[in-house]
Amino acid sequence: MNFLEEKILRNGVIKQGNILKVDSFLNHQIDVDTTRQMAYEFKRRFRDIEVNKILTIEASGIAIATLVGHLYDVPVVFAKKSETANSTDDKYVSKAYSFTHKRHNNVFVSRPYLSASDKVLIIDDFLADGEACHALIDLVHQSGGEVAGIGIAIEKGQQKGGSTLRAEGYRLESIAIIESMDWETQIIRFREQPQPPICNTHLKMG
Amino acid sequence: MNFLEEKILRNGVIKQGNILKVDSFLNHQIDVDTTRQMAYEFKRRFRDIEVNKILTIEASGIAIATLVGHLYDVPVVFAKKSETANSTDDKYVSKAYSFTHKRHNNVFVSRPYLSASDKVLIIDDFLADGEACHALIDLVHQSGGEVAGIGIAIEKGQQKGGSTLRAEGYRLESIAIIESMDWETQIIRFREQPQPPICNTHLKMG
Repeated sequence: MNFLEEKILRNGVIKQGNILKVDSFLNHQIDVDTTRQMAYEFKRRFRDIEVNKILTIEASGIAIATLVGHLYDVPVVFAKKSETANSTDDKYVSKAYSFTHKRHNNVFVSRPYLSASDKVLIIDDFLADGEACHALIDLVHQSGGEVAGIGIAIEKGQQKGGSTLRAEGYRLESIAIIESMDWETQIIRFREQPQPPICNTHLKMG
Repeated sequence: MNFLEEKILRNGVIKQGNILKVDSFLNHQIDVDTTRQMAYEFKRRFRDIEVNKILTIEASGIAIATLVGHLYDVPVVFAKKSETANSTDDKYVSKAYSFTHKRHNNVFVSRPYLSASDKVLIIDDFLADGEACHALIDLVHQSGGEVAGIGIAIEKGQQKGGSTLRAEGYRLESIAIIESMDWETQIIRFREQPQPPICNTHLKMG
């Protein structure tokens, strides 16, 4: 079991309706040690690919993406959401259905911040049906850039996002993949993943 | 002139209506080097105070707050915004007027993430009239915690937020304070601040 799976078992709470509440360390309060470990884990898993930009979506992807950008020393862009696109003149705009808010949101990035020379690592906290992730991919493609990889903290393996993205040929790495979870027993099962080599990397900022 | 003032002169754009656009490095695309320097500058300016939690507000405060939390090795909490408070049962809730969206937003933090033992450093990207900052202070006070300090990247010195917070006795540190700006000439003047000693701190993550 990896550090994030252990953290989920320790601090995650399963709610009725297939909801995993991890706001004590991931998307309301941010545990910096776990977030740093995620940044290192993404760097390790994507060590064979070239990355010159990190793309995420507001709000809870920003913390992880910032530490990944810090580690890669490349700019971090966060796509913004709005109910309506006031002006599409200087923006790449896509749409994503939000299950939380039960509506389609416009998702956009200003044109200067994505370009054809970009090799983009997409980072997000959750992957469920892949709505937000496909919107981010669409924005990168509109700019002519390349999606170098997709790094997700927690993938809900019972939902279609992960299998769709893998079938589409994207290099997707999810640190924890939930195979099943039960709110009555609070039991979570994770998909088996290859274990990383043990090392003693010092994770503090120098 | 400090690193942030130089960055603003190089990459900021003044728009009509007293708007400073810094989305190329601060609140849409994030320049990690500038953000890291801000984190170190806050740590330097607040070196005499004890901090065990960082508090910011979604979305654009999160990147700076994450690197500050990383440096202090303490949890980062970001307050959430919503038009309506669905349930106030387990949340501290305050209100802030958003000039961007021309409406009052509820601003909230779940109760477990702020407490009476917290010595909170509030971090945000902008300070103008102080609406968001006062809402964050209110949330800390509701929890019984202490506002140890307030660190702002860019203070609009022509607006009332900074002078109000200083008059209220808060320890406020703004890395760049705009004294005046003119969209026709694109000239920005900063308020003089004491210069930090020159040092060669290595800013990369170890």
